[in-house]
Amino acid sequence: METMGRHVISELWGCDFDKLNDMDYIEKTFVNAALKSGAEVREVAFHKFAPQGVSGVVIISESHLTIHSFPEHGYASIDVYTCGDLNPNIAADYIAEALSAQTRENIEIPRGMGPVQVKHSQAKAQ
Amino acid sequence: METMGRHVISELWGCDFDKLNDMDYIEKTFVNAALKSGAEVREVAFHKFAPQGVSGVVIISESHLTIHSFPEHGYASIDVYTCGDLNPNIAADYIAEALSAQTRENIEIPRGMGPVQVKHSQAKAQ
Repeated sequence: METMGRHVISELWGCDFDKLNDMDYIEKTFVNAALKSGAEVREVAFHKFAPQGVSGVVIISESHLTIHSFPEHGYASIDVYTCGDLNPNIAADYIAEALSAQTRENIEIPRGMGPVQVKHSQAKAQ
Repeated sequence: METMGRHVISELWGCDFDKLNDMDYIEKTFVNAALKSGAEVREVAFHKFAPQGVSGVVIISESHLTIHSFPEHGYASIDVYTCGDLNPNIAADYIAEALSAQTRENIEIPRGMGPVQVKHSQAKAQ
């Protein structure tokens, strides 16, 4: 199996409080995001914090998706890391929309290819 | 809870084949790495691929640690992401040593602080 992968780090702000605090919604969103990008889901583990916030991961055959949500700040910290021909931005875009993010910043990091180079991008949703 | 975090991306090469292919060893290593850095372990999910390779995550109260190993390439793709006062390099260093990595490249990305800046470092282990 090839080591090359694409890792998108997505900082989402201005997200919907209730969505960021709903573990079932987030878990469903992440599994759907993985499937939409063409990934094969292997393990799913999510955790709800008191009084608020959700952390979780979907392990896919092609690497992983993770989230840490901070509903009180409207912030979600997202990673989508894929190997092979998959495009991690498909999942990252789907997640940003599902969480109603008003602003987002993405960086993309190539993995498993030797020296690391980072590409930045910024976007405002809508 | 504060959104600020430190995310270390660690590319390990020249690792020991057998260690990279031993799911139990990797899981134990990752849990220990989390504990040594002072983290509280919340969820643990690992997966063994055929014919070789391990993916897994430890979700901690302070974010997560992940691995994707490619024993046939001696490569392990590591993320250690911590919030609060924890130092992710404690866990990353422990993991690199446990997997007998001969070379490693780290980048550190601040999370949850607005615009993303990336710090690079490279090191050869011994």
